[in-house]
Amino acid sequence: MSTVKFLLPEDRIPTAWYNIQADLKEGAAPARHPGTHQPLGPDDLAPLFPMALIMQEVSRDQQIEIPEEVREAYRQWRPTPLYRARQLEKALDTPAKIYYKYEGVSPTGSHKPNTAVPQVFYNKQEGIKRLTTETGAGQWGSSLAMAGSMFGVEVEVYMVRASYDLKPYRRGMMETFGASVIPSPSDRTDAGKAILADAPDSPGSLGIAISEAVEMAVKDPGAHYALGSVLNHVMVHQSVIGLEALEQMEMTGDYPDVIVGATGGGSNFAGIAFPFIGRKLRGERDVRVVAVEPAACPSITKGSFAYDYGDTAHLTPLLKMHTLGSTFIPPSIHAGGLRYHGMSPLVSHLHNINVIEATNYNQMETFTAGIQFAKAEGIIPAPEANHAVVGAITEALRAKEEGTEKTILFNLCGHGHFDMQSYLDFMAGKLHAYEYPESEIAMALAGLPGVQD
Amino acid sequence: MSTVKFLLPEDRIPTAWYNIQADLKEGAAPARHPGTHQPLGPDDLAPLFPMALIMQEVSRDQQIEIPEEVREAYRQWRPTPLYRARQLEKALDTPAKIYYKYEGVSPTGSHKPNTAVPQVFYNKQEGIKRLTTETGAGQWGSSLAMAGSMFGVEVEVYMVRASYDLKPYRRGMMETFGASVIPSPSDRTDAGKAILADAPDSPGSLGIAISEAVEMAVKDPGAHYALGSVLNHVMVHQSVIGLEALEQMEMTGDYPDVIVGATGGGSNFAGIAFPFIGRKLRGERDVRVVAVEPAACPSITKGSFAYDYGDTAHLTPLLKMHTLGSTFIPPSIHAGGLRYHGMSPLVSHLHNINVIEATNYNQMETFTAGIQFAKAEGIIPAPEANHAVVGAITEALRAKEEGTEKTILFNLCGHGHFDMQSYLDFMAGKLHAYEYPESEIAMALAGLPGVQD
Repeated sequence: MSTVKFLLPEDRIPTAWYNIQADLKEGAAPARHPGTHQPLGPDDLAPLFPMALIMQEVSRDQQIEIPEEVREAYRQWRPTPLYRARQLEKALDTPAKIYYKYEGVSPTGSHKPNTAVPQVFYNKQEGIKRLTTETGAGQWGSSLAMAGSMFGVEVEVYMVRASYDLKPYRRGMMETFGASVIPSPSDRTDAGKAILADAPDSPGSLGIAISEAVEMAVKDPGAHYALGSVLNHVMVHQSVIGLEALEQMEMTGDYPDVIVGATGGGSNFAGIAFPFIGRKLRGERDVRVVAVEPAACPSITKGSFAYDYGDTAHLTPLLKMHTLGSTFIPPSIHAGGLRYHGMSPLVSHLHNINVIEATNYNQMETFTAGIQFAKAEGIIPAPEANHAVVGAITEALRAKEEGTEKTILFNLCGHGHFDMQSYLDFMAGKLHAYEYPESEIAMALAGLPGVQD
Repeated sequence: MSTVKFLLPEDRIPTAWYNIQADLKEGAAPARHPGTHQPLGPDDLAPLFPMALIMQEVSRDQQIEIPEEVREAYRQWRPTPLYRARQLEKALDTPAKIYYKYEGVSPTGSHKPNTAVPQVFYNKQEGIKRLTTETGAGQWGSSLAMAGSMFGVEVEVYMVRASYDLKPYRRGMMETFGASVIPSPSDRTDAGKAILADAPDSPGSLGIAISEAVEMAVKDPGAHYALGSVLNHVMVHQSVIGLEALEQMEMTGDYPDVIVGATGGGSNFAGIAFPFIGRKLRGERDVRVVAVEPAACPSITKGSFAYDYGDTAHLTPLLKMHTLGSTFIPPSIHAGGLRYHGMSPLVSHLHNINVIEATNYNQMETFTAGIQFAKAEGIIPAPEANHAVVGAITEALRAKEEGTEKTILFNLCGHGHFDMQSYLDFMAGKLHAYEYPESEIAMALAGLPGVQD
């Protein structure tokens, strides 16, 4: 019994986000036009995003001021707690100290509102009345719906049909907040119609849903599109996690030797890690950083580092990133938030220049770790967060083997209250490991557009 | 955008619980033996509870020290935030100030761990290896399972079969924490067998599940029973909510004119209200207090104030309380945590001596209010909590009519992340109001044991 919580007072919510692009000698490669393959200018993105976000996308400023209205909304759940996982340490019998930042206290139970709130705010400021987006498991969609309801902006969510049918509760949450939720592929868009013509029973995918949401935003001058991960401005917003954690680690008297985060599109990982990586890049303090991805969707560890589309219909800009190919459909692991073929260009770049490491675990390993964590610490992690948990446990066991007193920090990006079916299935022996789907990935990679720097 | 959160520092977690029995001229009537009908002595309860809890049950001390191990476990999620509902005030266009204490930040998403933790702690101290309990919707069962896993005490939960079959997610949570969950009625107990003999397909009820859990605890000398509401010691533990709220209201510069809480067994209501009622009883500061119950299960507003059993098989002590009769089976409203025929003897007593008021709302009214709250404040309340929300909104609208600047405080006892099906059903027009089931209640009341003071 000695969970220890480190809480910041409310006036310590950061006043500025941290932008890692300021500390990179060479920035990430620019986004390119899906048709011309030329580097994008701000105007190319204007049909999709407000100018404030486009400017953040390319900014090299280290500090980006957080608008007062956004800080006020953040106060609903921020600062989030940092915990020392003493019970887990005891269960592992490790000399390592394990800390975790917990983002599950937000109203939707994950880190997603950190960027949903500013995205809605900047759009509202530019007079936008309606936002379109996609969602898989629904963490992002429900967060954008919540932010939309707070600021009075309409939200339209294209939800992967398989999730729409099988996981109605996140949909219920979005609808409770007043959002419209449309199963994707739908007959509202050309992209959706094309898919349905070929496969009337298509279960959909994140790539298809993105195509639909983008298409709808482009067609309506009063609407914009919002993306919950991958893009630079999302990484900027999520830096509040790590900025708070920096201060909280100071309260503990420790400093992380290693930081672990789960990676799907990269945003919760960037959130916890980038402010610490900034200190590393500036030569102030070294730290190992490990990105953990699912073995079923291993974009960093098994993908190519190349220009690729973000969606299936190839409507989005080309991004230079670790990718498994935009046609790759990951096995249906329960960590729906990590089932994306691409990776944040900034996270990809950091891996490419050897600033961060990456590893992957299969689904069985992640749930085993998640249950061990829940029993020790009392919090049931989201399946996505279990990837960070297994990574942290691995580091702690290694410290035990080596007899070193390592300090480990990880991001527990959300709770699993919407994901209990996956725990039931795991305990009933119904889950699959879903190791690296080698041939499907090879096939998808063969279809990369082949755009050079 | 002006949600305002009032947070206490961690060292302000109370060091002692508040016991309202100290401030009552005449205490609540004593519990009586189910067979002899004589007032119970401590030894009569020893097969069910550890002596520390039995002593709390009858204590007249105003302060009951919180063991350091319990405070340490509380630190996982306490102190919980107090919010000013500025967006809701704006939506209602009311001059009233609305504050709410939010217990949904606990690891299981409700106020139940406040008493689950000390109950497990005191049992463990007395060498108990196993606890039995019942659960309806599962908020209590999952909280006891979590506390059991934290302290290494085995937990066995008898879960009402209808919930076991229809709501597997709370069961998944209990099993993730390592608890055994048995659908009730079961063939493990005489009480369960008797029911199954008559009705093999019985959907069960809270009253039946209590009978089974009590029977199993009595049969095993290494086991005890735990109850999540109704009893005095539970009200004592939940006082942490109101003690924190007293300090937080001081931070706001306001003091509640009226406090609103949802009542099922009475514990979340007692938690927020008793410390304020104590001040009222001691003549320090007046306050109106309103208990809100479901129209489908209106024990205070429509029941008798009489001695009754807590369970169906009549194994529990007789309690003097507001009751709808121990054979009454409430309509299946979604606020499963409020579907209990009886009411805390202390809450009942306070109503009987006119210290508190009570009112009821039907299910449609509570969900309408809950959705209005969610859209304004970003948090989706549990169906139980919606009863407090509708009560608070009613007070705020009355203040608007009267043009008075009233301060309202209510307890948002849990989030609705496990209850999205009920929101989906409500939005799809599938819910029923379930007004006062008059004839069923009359029949159940006719079967009261008729024990006099």
